[in-house]
Amino acid sequence: MSTTRTAQLMEGAGLARRIIEETATKAAEISRFTGTAPCLATVLVGEDPASVTYVRMKRARCAKAGIQSRHIPLPSTTTTVELVDTIAALSRDPGVHGILLQHPCGPHIDERAAFEAISPEKDVDGVTMHSFAAMSFALPGFVSCTPGGIMQLLDAYDVELAGKHAVVVGRSAILGKPVGMLLLAKDATVTYCHSRTTDLPAIVREADIVVAAVGRPRLIRGEDIKPGAVVLDAGYNPGNVGDVDFDAARTRARLITPVPGGVGPMTIAVLLAQTVQAAENQLGLQER
Amino acid sequence: MSTTRTAQLMEGAGLARRIIEETATKAAEISRFTGTAPCLATVLVGEDPASVTYVRMKRARCAKAGIQSRHIPLPSTTTTVELVDTIAALSRDPGVHGILLQHPCGPHIDERAAFEAISPEKDVDGVTMHSFAAMSFALPGFVSCTPGGIMQLLDAYDVELAGKHAVVVGRSAILGKPVGMLLLAKDATVTYCHSRTTDLPAIVREADIVVAAVGRPRLIRGEDIKPGAVVLDAGYNPGNVGDVDFDAARTRARLITPVPGGVGPMTIAVLLAQTVQAAENQLGLQER
Repeated sequence: MSTTRTAQLMEGAGLARRIIEETATKAAEISRFTGTAPCLATVLVGEDPASVTYVRMKRARCAKAGIQSRHIPLPSTTTTVELVDTIAALSRDPGVHGILLQHPCGPHIDERAAFEAISPEKDVDGVTMHSFAAMSFALPGFVSCTPGGIMQLLDAYDVELAGKHAVVVGRSAILGKPVGMLLLAKDATVTYCHSRTTDLPAIVREADIVVAAVGRPRLIRGEDIKPGAVVLDAGYNPGNVGDVDFDAARTRARLITPVPGGVGPMTIAVLLAQTVQAAENQLGLQER
Repeated sequence: MSTTRTAQLMEGAGLARRIIEETATKAAEISRFTGTAPCLATVLVGEDPASVTYVRMKRARCAKAGIQSRHIPLPSTTTTVELVDTIAALSRDPGVHGILLQHPCGPHIDERAAFEAISPEKDVDGVTMHSFAAMSFALPGFVSCTPGGIMQLLDAYDVELAGKHAVVVGRSAILGKPVGMLLLAKDATVTYCHSRTTDLPAIVREADIVVAAVGRPRLIRGEDIKPGAVVLDAGYNPGNVGDVDFDAARTRARLITPVPGGVGPMTIAVLLAQTVQAAENQLGLQER
């Protein structure tokens, strides 16, 4: 018997692959049945290299899964009004089933206004106010992709949530806030921590489930992980470092996501799955 | 020096009176300036005695503050479609500035669909998905009235929130969830507890601020209140009993709301203030 326990890895990469395979099967069925492939519109403002890479990666994954994508690159001089008009037109376009606005869009853009031009039924990235409220109230709708991926990981690894204390570190509109609401809907007791939290380690020590979503390398120390806790690290910092000190945390946690290969791959899997779901809904093929 | 401390009372009744006075002054100015009084539409389905009383009380308060109200009583046989149509018509009616749907509406009504027929700019009761997301993302919009009242009490009594641990007991769509989001927006560390929470007393013991919003008489024991904590009791149970054991809690808390006369009166004050604000906005008199 070893005195050093080692957590089981929550292998998002593998789960994401299975989800994408299922999604591709469905996309092929939709194409065969209706003559129309699911279509994701990707909107990119400017030429930020990281954003260009992200969009290219997402489109490549779409293509592999039998999802068409329609790319709308806009100059960095695009105004909020122009961007809103472009997105509103995509919302009305019956040939587009899902809309992804790559963000950040730049400081001169009112990003919230741009997001809100996405109609809820095409909000496959889960960024609208409607989608957030739907997640919060357990109503039908699309989820934010990373939170959705985290919930699927928890489900795949049979993590019980009801009555457990989940600590979410981070409170962004598309990650921390919605994942907390999704956990609350599953009857977890949920604590939101953030940069202003006074004694983060003390709160983390109480957590049965830790979701790190803050973007600060190794902010969460292994020694603060409660033995047997479940740790999901949505942080992705330079040098493939998460928000959790992985090496130390894995000696205490029961389940932990690696970085990379944990939460990250789930995000795009949820995006693709929701795009196909949106196409099903809009083409009148609801099966769920 | 006494060994028994006694908390200062957070007197919602007095604060509400001041807010309503200011609101009445504004309403009178609006009427004088535009010839149009602010108008709240109240919609009531059926004749549940408690609901009838609540609506009558709200209308009486409106009248005293110089706010017109237009009452739309609907038979208990009203369908969701009919209710949605009625509310949608009020949303389009330029003579109506705010809309209040008294709820619960009865089990045969899709209450969410009815709420969503209220246009966000007339959602003075803060019940729509849009208003919830606006509260969550600190965007302009109306707040749910009881959460808004709680935040105004905290402000009036100079309670610092940044970095403090706020424990919200209850997770309803118009009380627990939004008040947690408003506290989070003020940089509190926020924990949502509810009926499935495993060890509520242990969590309450960590709270600098306790918001009780669950409707279970004296669920929160005085002995679990951290010395010096701030306690807001939005519970209102038969016999004028809150969700907190007031007599025991006041010996430990620094500030506490009485029941009645604490949070309760603030709810209607916020409703009236937001109705006048809505009229200002819609009549082109924005001053805030």
